[in-house]
Amino acid sequence: MIETDILIIGAGPTGLFAVFEAGLLKLKCHIIDGLPQPGGQLTELYPKKPIFDIPGFPSVLAGDLVHNLMEQIKQFQPGFTLGEVAEKIEKLEDGTFIVTTNKGTEHKAKAVAIAGGLGSFEPRKPLIEDIEFYEEKGVEYFVKDPEKFRHKRIVIAGGGDSALDWSIFLADVAKEVTLIHRRNEFRGALDSVEKVQELKHAGKIHLITPAEVVGLNGSEHLESIDIDENGAHRNIKTDYFIPLFGLTPKLGPIAHWGLEIEKNAIVVNNALDYQTNIEGIYAIGDVNTYPGKLKLILCGFHEATLMCQSVYNKLNPGKKYVLKYTTVSGVDGFDGTRKEAEKAVVKAID
Amino acid sequence: MIETDILIIGAGPTGLFAVFEAGLLKLKCHIIDGLPQPGGQLTELYPKKPIFDIPGFPSVLAGDLVHNLMEQIKQFQPGFTLGEVAEKIEKLEDGTFIVTTNKGTEHKAKAVAIAGGLGSFEPRKPLIEDIEFYEEKGVEYFVKDPEKFRHKRIVIAGGGDSALDWSIFLADVAKEVTLIHRRNEFRGALDSVEKVQELKHAGKIHLITPAEVVGLNGSEHLESIDIDENGAHRNIKTDYFIPLFGLTPKLGPIAHWGLEIEKNAIVVNNALDYQTNIEGIYAIGDVNTYPGKLKLILCGFHEATLMCQSVYNKLNPGKKYVLKYTTVSGVDGFDGTRKEAEKAVVKAID
Repeated sequence: MIETDILIIGAGPTGLFAVFEAGLLKLKCHIIDGLPQPGGQLTELYPKKPIFDIPGFPSVLAGDLVHNLMEQIKQFQPGFTLGEVAEKIEKLEDGTFIVTTNKGTEHKAKAVAIAGGLGSFEPRKPLIEDIEFYEEKGVEYFVKDPEKFRHKRIVIAGGGDSALDWSIFLADVAKEVTLIHRRNEFRGALDSVEKVQELKHAGKIHLITPAEVVGLNGSEHLESIDIDENGAHRNIKTDYFIPLFGLTPKLGPIAHWGLEIEKNAIVVNNALDYQTNIEGIYAIGDVNTYPGKLKLILCGFHEATLMCQSVYNKLNPGKKYVLKYTTVSGVDGFDGTRKEAEKAVVKAID
Repeated sequence: MIETDILIIGAGPTGLFAVFEAGLLKLKCHIIDGLPQPGGQLTELYPKKPIFDIPGFPSVLAGDLVHNLMEQIKQFQPGFTLGEVAEKIEKLEDGTFIVTTNKGTEHKAKAVAIAGGLGSFEPRKPLIEDIEFYEEKGVEYFVKDPEKFRHKRIVIAGGGDSALDWSIFLADVAKEVTLIHRRNEFRGALDSVEKVQELKHAGKIHLITPAEVVGLNGSEHLESIDIDENGAHRNIKTDYFIPLFGLTPKLGPIAHWGLEIEKNAIVVNNALDYQTNIEGIYAIGDVNTYPGKLKLILCGFHEATLMCQSVYNKLNPGKKYVLKYTTVSGVDGFDGTRKEAEKAVVKAID
């Protein structure tokens, strides 16, 4: 059982920065995230894209912002449970929480801060009849292990970077790669588009555009797909169908924790501390909602900070410590480091 | 008459960042500040000191943060009225405001955002009888124009950087410089302390410690001061007395604008948009107060952002535009510049 003061669900910028403010108040944090690395959508969706509205940065690449935040919090030694989704929550009589992931990892915490961003990322599924039946029987929404497709026939559908990049990669692995897209145009990095064109001319990728997959066939396992190519239907034999239509965020298991939800977001008390309807559970960043809410990273930073102060006040009733200027107070890391502004000298003149 | 959408009072980090968020919503800003340069206390009090709690900066010098913010907002071409204090406010029938400074400069705005930080900086005055009588008659709390003291006898009191630095500077200007401090020890940069020691030994600074100025004499203008040196009283002839005991923030004229004030801070509606009890006047950053308020720069950034959105909604009833990810929307400057993330190419494969 992992034990901590504040269990943060979501390793995006808001969740990461919460570790820093908690640390100033001597509270330890542990973070759970379904993605295999910290950073949330900044790392997963647009690490190389610039953000212009982080205060103090005329422009910062999303990946660099995450890197900076990891550097800023490392002195507070946060724990991470990555690649696992927080699934169940239980509130004990003493007010502490037990949170269990989809892989069974248990976490015990004095407070829980949901910093889930837009939610956990789930694949956008094409609207094809019986597609759920073929999941794990030939339909795959992620390429987790490319070796699975060695010497197999695969059909990839999609027109973005993922479809292009996996078609290129698997052209050397699979027996036969077919790429289907409903437009002639592909949207992705220029060199990926050109590489696919090259592989097509070399006969290593079979390209069918504009076309759509409209049916799946096979009794035990996928055996073939039906496609609609400009109104004409045809059937293609294949072992795997890999639709790569992007990820869509879903609130996921959190939606069933008894929290007040409004338009896919968690209602919080913004007039005080971003606490939810369940005492001890907070929601910060894009995952929450309140009158006037803006889904901006800088708002998440503020919400994380007030949440930490609120947890401190609950755990230390009567104590008066509040977060204040770090220039004056300095920063004491849990690793024994201390950051502080240089002090003026005090010296007698004789 | 200067006209703008949002008139911001205070050029500290919160006021500066408000210009950026307003600009995203196509609102123009003008800033008034009593100090001669932007940055507020970051520039005036600790430009060379590090701040550790700005999200995304493991450490940033206060002066560099101000520099970055000025760079971030320049595309939105804010106006500045510097070195003047906002003194009077008048609300017109159409809901707009006229704000007049102590120097008579008039500003007309659709909304007013007070980002006054800890307030305007006023000198800490020593408790000496009749000191007000001698103000502008020999008692000076700032050295605005050193030439005023050329060939004059001056007495400086204080033990910090200002007292040390002005004693050093004026040793070459004044006929006679006396530095008085109630302790033997001075608190300041090492090289300043050593320089004063050197000038004392060279007979260019007359040092009296531990001692205090206890009386002022002269009929029309200051002629001499009385000091208490270890219990012994003596009189020193002087033309000027310059007590440099630091600055203390005061809310100033804003305190008389009819705003609800609590413990020297302006009460705002934190549950919505940081508006004060007067519609159209907002208070953001360290100058405001609400339940759970933390006086942190990062909180000011959030408050500034929600304030801008609220002003936009008031000025554009019915329009639905809200602040959103700049990575997606890009940033259009008022100077014709556009910042945006590189788009993926869209290319047909033939």
